[in-house]
Order: sequence, then structure tokens, then C-alpha cells
Amino acid sequence: MNDPRDILEAVRDGTISVEDAERMLRSKPYVDLGFAKVDTQRRTRQGVSEVIYGASKTPQQSVLIAKTLMENGSGCVMITRCSKEVCETAKSEGLEAEFRDEARICIIGRIPEKKRASYICVVCAGTSDIPVAEEAAVTAEVLGCNVKRSYDVGVAGIHRLLSEADTIMGASAIVVAAGMEGALPSVVGGLVSVPVIAVPTSVGYGASFEGLTALLAMMNSCASTVSVVNIDNGFGAGYIASLIDKRGDN
Amino acid sequence: MNDPRDILEAVRDGTISVEDAERMLRSKPYVDLGFAKVDTQRRTRQGVSEVIYGASKTPQQSVLIAKTLMENGSGCVMITRCSKEVCETAKSEGLEAEFRDEARICIIGRIPEKKRASYICVVCAGTSDIPVAEEAAVTAEVLGCNVKRSYDVGVAGIHRLLSEADTIMGASAIVVAAGMEGALPSVVGGLVSVPVIAVPTSVGYGASFEGLTALLAMMNSCASTVSVVNIDNGFGAGYIASLIDKRGDN
Amino acid sequence: MNDPRDILEAVRDGTISVEDAERMLRSKPYVDLGFAKVDTQRRTRQGVSEVIYGASKTPQQSVLIAKTLMENGSGCVMITRCSKEVCETAKSEGLEAEFRDEARICIIGRIPEKKRASYICVVCAGTSDIPVAEEAAVTAEVLGCNVKRSYDVGVAGIHRLLSEADTIMGASAIVVAAGMEGALPSVVGGLVSVPVIAVPTSVGYGASFEGLTALLAMMNSCASTVSVVNIDNGFGAGYIASLIDKRGDN
Amino acid sequence: MNDPRDILEAVRDGTISVEDAERMLRSKPYVDLGFAKVDTQRRTRQGVSEVIYGASKTPQQSVLIAKTLMENGSGCVMITRCSKEVCETAKSEGLEAEFRDEARICIIGRIPEKKRASYICVVCAGTSDIPVAEEAAVTAEVLGCNVKRSYDVGVAGIHRLLSEADTIMGASAIVVAAGMEGALPSVVGGLVSVPVIAVPTSVGYGASFEGLTALLAMMNSCASTVSVVNIDNGFGAGYIASLIDKRGDN
Amino acid sequence: MNDPRDILEAVRDGTISVEDAERMLRSKPYVDLGFAKVDTQRRTRQGVSEVIYGASKTPQQSVLIAKTLMENGSGCVMITRCSKEVCETAKSEGLEAEFRDEARICIIGRIPEKKRASYICVVCAGTSDIPVAEEAAVTAEVLGCNVKRSYDVGVAGIHRLLSEADTIMGASAIVVAAGMEGALPSVVGGLVSVPVIAVPTSVGYGASFEGLTALLAMMNSCASTVSVVNIDNGFGAGYIASLIDKRGDN
Amino acid sequence: MNDPRDILEAVRDGTISVEDAERMLRSKPYVDLGFAKVDTQRRTRQGVSEVIYGASKTPQQSVLIAKTLMENGSGCVMITRCSKEVCETAKSEGLEAEFRDEARICIIGRIPEKKRASYICVVCAGTSDIPVAEEAAVTAEVLGCNVKRSYDVGVAGIHRLLSEADTIMGASAIVVAAGMEGALPSVVGGLVSVPVIAVPTSVGYGASFEGLTALLAMMNSCASTVSVVNIDNGFGAGYIASLIDKRGDN
Amino acid sequence: MNDPRDILEAVRDGTISVEDAERMLRSKPYVDLGFAKVDTQRRTRQGVSEVIYGASKTPQQSVLIAKTLMENGSGCVMITRCSKEVCETAKSEGLEAEFRDEARICIIGRIPEKKRASYICVVCAGTSDIPVAEEAAVTAEVLGCNVKRSYDVGVAGIHRLLSEADTIMGASAIVVAAGMEGALPSVVGGLVSVPVIAVPTSVGYGASFEGLTALLAMMNSCASTVSVVNIDNGFGAGYIASLIDKRGDN
Amino acid sequence: MNDPRDILEAVRDGTISVEDAERMLRSKPYVDLGFAKVDTQRRTRQGVSEVIYGASKTPQQSVLIAKTLMENGSGCVMITRCSKEVCETAKSEGLEAEFRDEARICIIGRIPEKKRASYICVVCAGTSDIPVAEEAAVTAEVLGCNVKRSYDVGVAGIHRLLSEADTIMGASAIVVAAGMEGALPSVVGGLVSVPVIAVPTSVGYGASFEGLTALLAMMNSCASTVSVVNIDNGFGAGYIASLIDKRGDN
Repeated sequence: MNDPRDILEAVRDGTISVEDAERMLRSKPYVDLGFAKVDTQRRTRQGVSEVIYGASKTPQQSVLIAKTLMENGSGCVMITRCSKEVCETAKSEGLEAEFRDEARICIIGRIPEKKRASYICVVCAGTSDIPVAEEAAVTAEVLGCNVKRSYDVGVAGIHRLLSEADTIMGASAIVVAAGMEGALPSVVGGLVSVPVIAVPTSVGYGASFEGLTALLAMMNSCASTVSVVNIDNGFGAGYIASLIDKRGDN
Repeated sequence: MNDPRDILEAVRDGTISVEDAERMLRSKPYVDLGFAKVDTQRRTRQGVSEVIYGASKTPQQSVLIAKTLMENGSGCVMITRCSKEVCETAKSEGLEAEFRDEARICIIGRIPEKKRASYICVVCAGTSDIPVAEEAAVTAEVLGCNVKRSYDVGVAGIHRLLSEADTIMGASAIVVAAGMEGALPSVVGGLVSVPVIAVPTSVGYGASFEGLTALLAMMNSCASTVSVVNIDNGFGAGYIASLIDKRGDN
Repeated sequence: MNDPRDILEAVRDGTISVEDAERMLRSKPYVDLGFAKVDTQRRTRQGVSEVIYGASKTPQQSVLIAKTLMENGSGCVMITRCSKEVCETAKSEGLEAEFRDEARICIIGRIPEKKRASYICVVCAGTSDIPVAEEAAVTAEVLGCNVKRSYDVGVAGIHRLLSEADTIMGASAIVVAAGMEGALPSVVGGLVSVPVIAVPTSVGYGASFEGLTALLAMMNSCASTVSVVNIDNGFGAGYIASLIDKRGDN
Repeated sequence: MNDPRDILEAVRDGTISVEDAERMLRSKPYVDLGFAKVDTQRRTRQGVSEVIYGASKTPQQSVLIAKTLMENGSGCVMITRCSKEVCETAKSEGLEAEFRDEARICIIGRIPEKKRASYICVVCAGTSDIPVAEEAAVTAEVLGCNVKRSYDVGVAGIHRLLSEADTIMGASAIVVAAGMEGALPSVVGGLVSVPVIAVPTSVGYGASFEGLTALLAMMNSCASTVSVVNIDNGFGAGYIASLIDKRGDN
Repeated sequence: MNDPRDILEAVRDGTISVEDAERMLRSKPYVDLGFAKVDTQRRTRQGVSEVIYGASKTPQQSVLIAKTLMENGSGCVMITRCSKEVCETAKSEGLEAEFRDEARICIIGRIPEKKRASYICVVCAGTSDIPVAEEAAVTAEVLGCNVKRSYDVGVAGIHRLLSEADTIMGASAIVVAAGMEGALPSVVGGLVSVPVIAVPTSVGYGASFEGLTALLAMMNSCASTVSVVNIDNGFGAGYIASLIDKRGDN
Repeated sequence: MNDPRDILEAVRDGTISVEDAERMLRSKPYVDLGFAKVDTQRRTRQGVSEVIYGASKTPQQSVLIAKTLMENGSGCVMITRCSKEVCETAKSEGLEAEFRDEARICIIGRIPEKKRASYICVVCAGTSDIPVAEEAAVTAEVLGCNVKRSYDVGVAGIHRLLSEADTIMGASAIVVAAGMEGALPSVVGGLVSVPVIAVPTSVGYGASFEGLTALLAMMNSCASTVSVVNIDNGFGAGYIASLIDKRGDN
Repeated sequence: MNDPRDILEAVRDGTISVEDAERMLRSKPYVDLGFAKVDTQRRTRQGVSEVIYGASKTPQQSVLIAKTLMENGSGCVMITRCSKEVCETAKSEGLEAEFRDEARICIIGRIPEKKRASYICVVCAGTSDIPVAEEAAVTAEVLGCNVKRSYDVGVAGIHRLLSEADTIMGASAIVVAAGMEGALPSVVGGLVSVPVIAVPTSVGYGASFEGLTALLAMMNSCASTVSVVNIDNGFGAGYIASLIDKRGDN
Repeated sequence: MNDPRDILEAVRDGTISVEDAERMLRSKPYVDLGFAKVDTQRRTRQGVSEVIYGASKTPQQSVLIAKTLMENGSGCVMITRCSKEVCETAKSEGLEAEFRDEARICIIGRIPEKKRASYICVVCAGTSDIPVAEEAAVTAEVLGCNVKRSYDVGVAGIHRLLSEADTIMGASAIVVAAGMEGALPSVVGGLVSVPVIAVPTSVGYGASFEGLTALLAMMNSCASTVSVVNIDNGFGAGYIASLIDKRGDN
């Protein structure tokens, strides 16, 4: 109970004393590990498993945060943008851990079982876009979704994309990762009537400006179904797609 | 039946002759009005009402397209970025028409009845952002959604936003329109566990660069629930939000 | 005979005296109209009809230049980016003149007869791109080419483009005009094995930055057949396409 | 036979059964090597030898793809942006291979014999632009063209360029590579009446912005014969030039 | 006495001779160490301790400048953007020295005692912003201010920020360091009625453009209390905040 | 009493009932005028007079808001970026109103009397920068500060600036408005030991990019005393300067 | 006598009293017209005639400043970026005045007689660049230089430029105005051994970005003789060229 | 004799035969070393010593070019942007060579004696700008100029700059190198009546964008005496300054 409104209602209902209410308002809803404040109640607030952004942490730090979360009731924790060493450190700490190489994600604990029939489709333009696509795909899997992949279906070989049309058109939400001219989300977005989350990738050279060109192209998509996340942000795209897919549970 | 695969299956099943199949492949699924090719079968392909982008057309052209669509079975057509004159032209052509002033949208025919309990929430930062927010809200309404509005709740007066928290947190999808520093989607995105569609607006001056600063800020949102559409693209945001809301039907 | 080498050879061959050679070297190969130097020998050097860029000239100036060129042997002169008034002025000066409205081109004299069987294909994404596409198409026609048009075939409705595939794939060179995300040249470029000249248009809003996004996207095309000209430069694209088509004469 | 239309015609003509047609529509026209899908029928569709972009692949991967292509009927395969090691790996695999150092291209198999009298001219501004120019030149050679080179003829020493004028003016198509201010294509484009493919290079410092300045300058060329490809994209320029040269065969 | 006006007044008052005045005007108010001119009178002119920008100097150079300043009357000198080695070099030179790790600042001599009750608050969005925040905080401490820190209170978890509201609202001036979308200064600026110095940090990836997005967002803050310094310029922010805090002495 | 914490404390102290607390939490601290929500308690929260941004409102709207504020206890309201018509409308509504032409500010009610001896100095580079400087100066005056002006003292005539040095060096805070190269804040910032608020102006042409160049230059100031606000944001600079000046009251 | 050093020396020499020195230090070396401070001693300090930037002034203001300067000893004053109306106003005030149409410059008084044999050459690429070139040419003439013009000699017709080589190579300094790709200064700079002042013009469209592309290209000139001024800044270029030409007097 | 006109005159005068004229026209005025074409007659054409840009060459290549030039009559050759190793290589080849460390320039042969009394002044803002300033200073020295240096006189300590005013004001031309906000050229340019060549340096961080901010600020200088060269282009600035200084010889 961290929300001021919850606390006030409890005071009104006589469930807690005013003194307790005061203390609660002052208490901080996290465990302080020194190098990080671990938000042990976030899962409640946002309804999903905790995610650790591994890029700016040592393997030891990432694993210690994961352990704290598991001890506070998380069933599954994912560490993004990390190396294999993180996974090994986790195992040596007695945690159940699995490393997804292309996605650069370490999964601690058990991926929840899928109960839905629906699936997310993750599409990418070229083989160089696969790491970003996999980050999206694994993220969605960890968050409880079924995922189908259609990789290497760039617009310069439009027949490849069309041969995947059934898979793409049956999804509840679609993630499309593409670099260079970033044209793929527009073509995919024109084929479907579900949201398309476009991820510009930093694949390309020269006037691709490390993904800026793809980002701008995707922002200007002539398909009304397309919204965009940051360059190389496969995690964010997979996360949003999972929220859309989950919407079908209601 | 426009899809090559559908046609091929029909040939195989003996439902249509090879000659018919050929002609069908060659026939174009639109009515040609001279100044525009009206896609009379798009509703089937994408599952939603047709939308006419009014900005680059004369009132007469917009209304003629709308009329063609209504005659081909559309129950409701929306003309975006148009003036009141469009609505009057439509009425003089015998069409049932309504003009939404702030949204600059003319609605032809009848908005479908809402059958879902769920709703979309449209949020905006300042009063100058309201036209974009209204474009999103009216779009979603025309596409069959319930919509709640929380306007003028910018981050520099955070208590205003928090006093709207209940409304925001209960939505199935959220559209957030903001100009200037574009900070609002991050704050909203941290409060909820549903997708947030951020719309940068061209509101601001100087280093706002007509919405570019807001766009970039939104792309870098620290909230994982946020994806972004083009500057001032209220229509796109409302469209995507309606697809997410509709996902609850399944 | 303007080239120093030609003159030197003529001196050596005794065809002309040293005095004549000197005078020739000093003479300027143009007629000076005060407001412009008209290059009456350019056709020889570059092998095509003279083109007048009408945007920065008064109708009187454009027509006077055209008249000077016709009097110096041009059979056909084209004035680009001009208004209908130019055409009327030309007629009042006794010139044979025709105005192409959408292309904003005035044609003085007679378009050369087509002798080739080959044709150029001009493709555009949306109806707003048509003026740029027409500038390319009329330019190529004036320069002696057959031209076929495939308009309003943007990537968000990929089936429209594919239904035009025969026309596109049979051309000797292709011009593709597109604004917004500029994706169409990549898709077209992947279908053909002839050069594709991409023209970004200033069609779009917000993050289209008046054609810059389309330009950058086209520069990064994943199709190896695509090269790019300046924003809205339909004339340049038509000109280059005509040179490629003409190459078939050799 | 991959194209849906070809298949449908064959069904109509009784050449293949409906069952075969179905299977064909579903079959994928490539060999899957795990790390890449090798498009074994692309040569047919685009009419040229297959090209492997070596930059993002290990030598083993590049060579395996090349081998697969050679076994499926390619006479000559080119691996771009690769190191000498690729060539040695190819030889150790029993392939006929040659490495072009400055162009960073490995040629597998035999370059087709030249049957045309025409040639492409590759021009560059400074010695630092030579690697990009060579990529263009070797690409065109592998694709069956005669190539003449005019290197180190930058605009600040205009007499050097003019002393090469004969070579430049006799070509069927011209590639011009230049960094810094990117002025050379405009000067060359003013001398000739064939298409000029301009390649901005990343040569320069400070406000050259790794080729962006040259790219923008080339887009604004006052010569109507100039179109532009991506920064350092020598391959693309050579490819397009070869298509133009080949056009003379018709 | 370096100021021309002071010297002129002294001439007028007969305190110094014209000859001395001349010499003084010519003398340079610094000690020349060869690699740097040390401004030994700057403290007088600007009223604060001298600061050495360590990034572009060897440890030996930084320490020699510090020593010169201490010998000319400075009680405390701070070396910014330096390594631990600087501190060790200072100690080996007999100087009293302390190294603040996260702030990358070496303090030579004694931090002045605090006499004010007021304090500066340094706020940052994420743990990656802490080095910049610490540079600001330590700078202000060395310049004689009390400092309170509120770290890791980014806008996507607005309740964390609000739980720190008392601390933030009681400060005499506030420094806010944030990367990514740079939204935090707007939220903080809306809560307080004292100046907020915003420091964009280079934390982020993709479209954060190494802090440019945060900088632009902060420039467009909807809170009137916010002004901005350069990316990662914690020193400047702490310096300005200390000037504001010191203003309370008057 | 709007703050949740204030309300909770009152519940604890028995000052208000739980029912009242609930109602208070739900009540909105503003008057809704239809076109705007007027924040009648903001003065309490931020400690300054209310400011109305006139640019996006009709004169009638601005005046109605001002009237509402005056009726809710404001002694002085300022309408920025407005025309003289606003002032006349205010007078016709019976309000005491004064128009400052160059600053484009209308002052409603009475400017508070100055009780401090300290003053703010507003400096600008050229005569074209005066409107922005005046917006800052009048803002500070309305907020209760003494203001001295040093105008037209740009860096290319450094002696002019130096002849104003006494005025500049005696201020409690300094606002510097400059366009073109934006160099003036650096020179001023080197002369003083108080905060300098730099305002880039949109004065200039060509590569001044409507103030962007000045903004970037100011962000990179070599003087540690300089922070920056948005282009042409005289109001913000005057506001922040007044907060610094007011700090001397404590 | 405004310079502090001059004054100090005079005190030392007994030429002036300390009291006079003080007053002189305080006196401002300009006439204050209310809307402008006219620097009546600037000619002494910089050695050239005064220039009035007419763009931001009314004709009356410009003429009043000119009159004040003439009355304080100027022999010739030039008003830049003004309309013909300024010239007529000047004449009605009894001033000798001449208007140069293309240069948009009004000359008050008499242009000094030329005593040097040397001349400046002003070159421009196209007829649209002439206004900027004329601003440079007239500026240099007013400042006492002989000027030769070589207009309409853009790089796409290199023979035109070469036919002007004698004129260009004989100058003491060269101004080159060019828009679009801005290539001309590089070619001219390679032909000569005197300074070339390049002026980018805003001539062009699309990716010329109103002169930015030309500016960047000129900054990257491969000719070592080229320096650059702001877009359309013909006045600055003419001014600098005149300083170089004048250097020959020494 | 390379110029076509010279050759033609010689033919006319009977000095050379037509056959010789032809051969001369075809001969190339350089020595081909394989990796470079050495322009042995450039000194004649441009009137200065040859300069070798060392950055893109091996020490052996640079020295071989220098040797070739010395053998073809150069008295002094300068190699820019090189390491000390180049100097040692030159000496081991028997050349007279000297290395200027800070300027990164190797001087081969003897610097010409100075015959002029005039001098160039090289000014820089901070100690980090010294390498660029030295490149300018040494370049001018090698080209025969006297040079005076005023370093570390940035605008934030304006008194330092003013104490150097005599030196600065007496120069025939001034080079000013500055990074960060690039304000120094404007202040210097306002003090003098000779050309100021501004060199933006890449010194700075964050929003300095590696010199772009300084470059833009310098382009917008309010001083009419300032023109600009590329970022860090000390060589170009020194070269142009030497041309201006040399102009005094005439």
C-alpha cells in the first residue's frame, strides 16, 4: 500500500491508524542495494514481471537485483542487453537461468505458461536486424505471449514478404524491425488491421545516420496502423505488443 | 475477392472459371473519380470505416468520395482536416453529416453504437494541444470506441494530472498529445499498464522546432509503454488506440 | 567550334588562320539578352533541346529566351515551373505553344516524333505526388520518349502496385516520385532490372520535413537499382530517364 | 516459376495441376543455410549475377553462400566489402577466386567476357576517394562492362579534369566519386550528355560530416544529368552504371 | 589592482605614480607555467575559489596549477574531470587532497565551513545520471554550500519523486540532471518557486543523440523556473546554484 | 489546501473530517471558464503573481482570465505576448491596466512596490534584441524587482560594453539577450560573479537559423555563470532573474 | 580620444587633467537618436565609411542616421538592404543620394575616387545570385575599390568560367557568390593565388535548405584560398575584399 | 607552358611547331609516383610553395613526394598533419628537415627569409586551441610571413584580450582559432580594420558538436571583418592570411 489514496481510504475505514498512515507515506517501496533501489512493488503497480536493463550494470549487480526480486515474489525476471556471463553468474548463485544469445537476454526463473491462443508476430527486414527482432520476440515470450517470427522479408524482395502474409495477418499485434530506409512497417501496416509497432534499427551506413533515417521514415508511414519506438529498442516494442496481446484476455 | 490466393482457390474449387479469375486479377478494386481512386473494398481488408484525408482536397472532392463510399456500403465515413464548408456541402448533397469543430472532422452517416464497456482515454498537456487531442478522440469515437478526455494536465502542474489518475488508469489504451518538451507521455506511461500512444504536437516556439523536440523526447521515453506517431497526427493515434480497444472484443 | 582543341586542330590543318582562331577563342557562344546569356550552342554540346527554368523569370523573359533559341535552330523548347500566362505570352509572340497544367510546363514548338518502341514508366505514391510525376513525364515526352504512368500506387496498398507490375517491369527506365516515408522506390527497385530514378516530394507534414525524410530514405534504399535527385525535381528525373532510354538507340 | 501470375497461366494452360500450383505458391525460392536464405532464382528475376554484402558476415558464411550460388548455376559471384581472408577461404574450398584489394571485392568464378564496344567511365576527385571509385569500377567489370578510370581530377585543379575530357565524354555512363564539397559531379555533368551517378564519399573532416555535405551538394547539382546514391556506395553506383551500359544491347 | 579604472583612480589620488600605473597596465595578472597562464587574481574578481578543468591536462600539470594557486592564497582548489591519480600526485607533492570518485573531482585544501542554514538540492532521474549530479553536488559543497541529494527519481515512477517533495521544495536552488527525454526538470520546476538549473546528460541511446534530445526538451520546459546548461555540465550547474544560494548572504 | 499531505495532516490533527478530506481531494483548485481552467491557488504554491500567456488567446479570453484572478485575490496580473487591444479591453472591463509597448505586456492592477535595494540588470546586444530584453525587464518589474537596462552593447564594439561595466557588475542577477552569434553572455559572464540568464533571440539571417546558432553558442559558454532559456523567451529569463533577486530577501 | 590607454597617456603627458580624463572615460562616443546610438567615431577606429543596415529600420530612421553621420564628417554613407523609398527620403532631406537597384543599396554622399590600379573581381554562378553579388560589388565600390564582374559562370558550363579566366586571375581579391551546390568557389579558388571570399546564397530549392548546403560545401572547399561568410551576406564579402585590396596601399 | 592559350600563342608566334603544341596539350604537368601525381608546376600557377597533406599518407609516401618537389625546384616544402616520424624519415633520406611539434608540421628545406616589416597575428581562445593556432602560425611562417601569437585570450576574461590589443591591432591580417561558443572572432573583429580569418576548433563537449556550434557562431559574426574556414583548418587560415600579408608587396 504505497498510493496516498489507498492509505487515506484505509485511515477512513479504520483499517490503519493515522500514525501508521504517516509512516507508510514516508516509507519507500524499494529495497536499497547501495548501487540501486529495487522496486519490489512495481509488479503490482504495472502488472508485469520486473525487467533489469543490464547494459549499465556489472553481472554481479544485475544478478543481485534479480535475486532480490525473486525473493520478493517475482516468478520470472529478465535481464536485457547483457552478456552470457550474467547467466553463468546467476546459475552460480543458485538461480534457474537461461541465456538467449541473439536477443542478449538472460531469463531468471520460469517463463509463464501461455494460456492464450493468440500470438504476436515479429517481422524484420534483413538478417542484420535479427538481434533487435529477437529482443522484441523474447521479451514478449517472457511476458507470456506466443510469438511467430518472419525474418529477412525486406521490401526489395516483396514476394518474400507476401509469402509470409498469412502468418502476419493472423497476429494480434505486430513488431517490425528495419534499418536503412525503414520501409517495411508501411508495407506490413497496409496489410493488417492490428497495431504495428515499428522499431528502427541502426543497421545501415552513410546517410542512415545510425537509424535516424529509418526512424523518420517510420514516423511518416502512410499506414495508419504504425507507431514507433526508439532506435534498436526491441524490448520496448515487445513490451507494448505484449500489452496489446494481453488486452484480449479481458 | 481481390487476393490472388482467394482467386486461385476458387479456380481450384471450380467456383469460378479461369477466364473469370483472369479478369478478376486484372480488375482494380476501386472506383475511379478522375481526381481520386476510391478504394471501395478497403473496409473488408482492414476491418474499419474508410477515412478521407481532407487537407489536400476541395470540399466537393471530399464529399464526392464520401458519397461513393456510402453508396458502396459504408455506414460511416470520416473526413479529417477539413473545414465546416465540407459539412455543409455534404448536407446539400443529401448526406447525413456532422461537423466536430475542434477536431476539424466531418462525420458522414452514423457513428456505430458502442457495445464495449471499455474506453480509451485521451490526455493532453495544454489547451493549445486540444485540436490534436480532439482529432484522436473523435477518430476513436467514429471507429466505435467510448472515449474519456483529460485535458490541460501538463507536467508543470503535476497535481492536476494526479487528480485525473483514476480516469487514466482505467482505460484500455491511452493517447497523450503534448508539445513543447513532450514530457507528459513519460509520466502517464509510468502510471499505467496499457499501451500509450504519444502524439507530439507543433505547439511551442523557438527550440521546439514545430514539434521535433517533443517527438524526440517521446522517442526516448523512460516508460516502456510508450510508442509515438507523427507530429500533430491525432488521427493516427486515435486509430491505433481504437485497434487496441477493439482487441478486447476477441 | 568553341572547344580549344577543335580550334587548334583547325589551325594545324590550315582550315582557319591563327587570327580567326584567336577571335574564336575570345568569342562567347551565347546571345546576351541583358537579363540572361542564352547558350545557343548548348544543344550541340549536350545533344538535347534547351530547357528554360521558368520559376525565377517573368513570362516575357522566358518567352524571349525561347524565341531566341527557336531562331537559332531549336525545334522544341520547354519552359518548366511556369504559369499558364507564359503559354499565352508565347502564342501572342507568334510561337506554337502548349501548356501542360499539372506539370506546369509550357512546350514551345513541336515535340519530336517518337521512333523507339521502348518507354519510360513514371510511378507515384499518392495523388499529391502527381505534379512532380507529371513534370518528369512531360519532360521525358518533350525529349522524345514514350511514357507510361502508374499513379497512386503507394506501399500501404501493395496490391495496387502489384496490379501495375507488368507496366513497370517492361520499361527501359523508371521514375518514382514519393513523399512521406519515401518507401516506394525500394519496392519498385526490387521488382525490376533497369535504373530507378527516385524523386522525393515535399508531400507530408510534421517529421517529413518538406521532403528531407523521403530523400534520406531513398538514399538508403535496399534496392541496388535506385539513385536519387533533389526534392520535387521531376524535371531532373525525367531528363535522366530520357538519357537512359535514348541509350537504346546506340 | 515463382510469380503468382506465371503459375496461374500455367494452371489455365493445363501445364501444371492445381495441386502443383498450390505447392509452388507455398514453396520458397531460396536455399536456407541457417544464417541466411540464399535467393537462388534472383538472377532470373533481375538479370544479373548475385552479389554478397560481405561486411556483416564471417568469411566462412560469405564463401558458403557463394558456393551455394555457384552450385545453382551462377557463373560469377562477387563478395563486396570483404577482406583478403575471404578470397583465401574461397580458394581453400576449391573455388576459383580473385581479390581486388582497393575495391575490397572478392570475385568468385569468371568475369563474363565483354561483348560491347561501349564503356563506363569512373571518375574520382582525390586519391582518398579511390577505394569507393574502385568498388564501382570492379562492380561494373564483374557485371560485364568495359571500364575506364580517371582518378585524382578534383575541381581545384580544373586543368587535370579537362585533360581527361575525351575519356569522360565518350562513356555510356559515368560514375563520379567525391568527398569534401562534392563539386566534381556538377562539373562532369556539365560536360556530358549521358547519366552521371554521383557517389558522395566520407573523405573530409570537420564540416564534411562524414559525407553528408558532399551528399547534399550533389543533390543540388546544377547539372541535370546527375543522380546520387548513398555515401561510399560505390557498389550501387557501379551497378546502376552497368544497367545503363547494358541498355545499349537492346 | 588590474582594472584600468582602479589604476586611473589611484593616479588621480596620488596613491601611485604614472610610471607605476603604466607598468601595472602592462603587467599580466597571472603566473606563467609554460603550459598554462594561472590567473592568481581571479578569485578577487569573481569571488569564488579557482577551478581547474582537469580533462585536458596531465596529473602533473593540474597539480602544479593547484599548488601555484594555493601558494597565492587560495584556501581550496578543485580539479574537475580528473582521475584518482591526480589526487595521489597532489598528496605526493605535500598537498592536502581528497578524491570524490563519482564526481571525478579532486579537492585540494579545505572545503570552507558552511555558515548558512540554506541548502541546494541536487536531483537526478536515473542511476546513470549520478556522475553528473555528483559533479554538481561536490562543486556546490566546495563553494561553501550545504547540499541535499534526491537521486533516481525519474518521471516514469512519479511517486518516488513526490516522496522526496519536502526535500526538493525546501531548497534555495535546485540542480536537476536527466538524460533520455529530459522531462524531470519540468516536473520539479512546477513544484517549486526557486530557480531550477537543468543539466541534460548524455545518458540514453538511439534518438537521444548523446544528450541533444534532453537539452532541447529542457529548453522547451513548460515550467518558467528552468534554465539550462551544456550536456553533462554538472560543474556549471553546481556553480550557478552556489551563486544563487550565496545570494541569501546579502 | 490542495496538497494530499496537507489534507492528511489535517485529518490527523482533527481539523477536518475524513469526509471533508475526501471531498477536498476530489475538488479541483481552479475556476473553469470553458476555454481555460484558471488556477486560482497557484500564487500560493509558487509565491508569485499569475502570468497569462496571451499569444494563443483572444483579447476577451485573456482579460476574462485576468479578471477572474483579480477577483480571487491577485494584486497584479501580467498578460505576455499580447497587443494593445488587450489593454483597451481590460480598461473597458473596469480593470486598471497599462500596456508596455516594446515588451508586448499588459499589466493589470498595480505593480508591487519595490522594497529591496538590489537590482537586476538586463543587457542586450543590438537594437533588434530590445523587444526580448524588454519582455524580461518588464516581467521582473511586475514581479517586484528594480531593473537597470544596458542595451545595444554588442561584442563587436567591446568599448560600449565596458563603459557599462559598473551597472552590470552591481546587479544581483543579469539577463543577456543576443541573437546572431550569441557571444555577449560569455563576455558579460566573465565580468561578474552572479548568475547570468542568457536568452538567444531569433535576430539574424542565413546560418542564424532563427536563433538556434545563438542558443547553441550560449550553451557552450566558456563562462561558468551562464545558463540558457528558450529562443526569445524574455519572460522566462526575467522570471528566473526575479527569483534570484528575491532570494536576497531571506 | 575614447581609448583608455590614450587617455592615460594624456594624463601622464599633462595634456589633459585627471578630471577631464574621468569625464572622457564616462562620455559615450555616440549621438543618441532615441531609436539608435550613432557611433560617430567608428570611422576613426576601423578606418572605413559607416554602414547602415537598413533591413530593420524605417526609411526615416535610416536617413536620419545617415544625416547625423554626414554632419559628423563622413564623406560617404551606405544604407544596405533598403528600398528605393530610402533614396527618395534622403533626397527630400537635401542629401546627395543614389540608389543601386539590384544591390538594394542607397549611397549617400560621394563615392571616394579610386586611386589604385588594382581591382576586385565579383563572380557569381547564376542569374539568381546577382543581387547578392551586386551587394558585394557596390559595397566594395563605395569603399573605394575598382570592381570587375563575371556573372552567370556556374560550374555546369565550365567553358563560360574559363573564358573569364583572365579577368578573374588578375584581381587582388575575389568574391564568389553561389547557391545550390556551392561548387564555384572551389573551381575559382584553384585558378588563383589571391584570397577568395565565398558567399553562399539562398538560391535553390529542396535539399539546398535555403543556402545551408552551399555554405557547408564552401566550408569544405578543396582549394586553400577560400574562406566563407554567412548566407546572402554580400555586404560582408565586399567589405572583406575591400580590406584586402586596400592592403596593397601599404 | 601548360595553359592552352600560351600554347596557341606560341604556335602563332612560330616559337613551337603544331606537333609540339599537340604533344604539350596532351602531356600531364606532374610526376606520377604510383600512389600520387605530384604537381611539379603548381608553384608557378599559384605562386607559393607546395604543401603535402600528411594525414592520409605513410611517412615514406610524404617524404618521397617532398623529395620529388625539392628535386623539381621547390626551396621549401611543408608536410601538414604528420608525426615526428616523417621528419626522421626525411632526414634519413638526406633532406634538411625540421619538426614543429604543436603544429604537427614538418618543414623540408629552408623557410624563405622575411623581407616585409608587416606581420600576421594568430590569436586563440584557450590552451586547447593551440594546436590549430600553431598550424596556422607555422603555415604562414613557411610561406614567408612574420607571425605574432596571442594565445589563451578567451572572451570570458576580456581583460586578457584587451592587454594584447596593441599586438592584434598592428597586424596585416589576423587568424582567430576558438572552440566552444566561438565568440572570440567577433570581439577581435570589432577591434581591427584588417581581415580576420576565423577557425572554429573541435574543442568543447556536449552541444559543441565537435566544432559545429563554433562554426555557426562565427558565420553569424556581427563584425564585418570576419570570414570562416573549416573546423580545425589551421592550415587554410594561415594560408589565406599569408596571401593577404603578401598583398602588401605589390
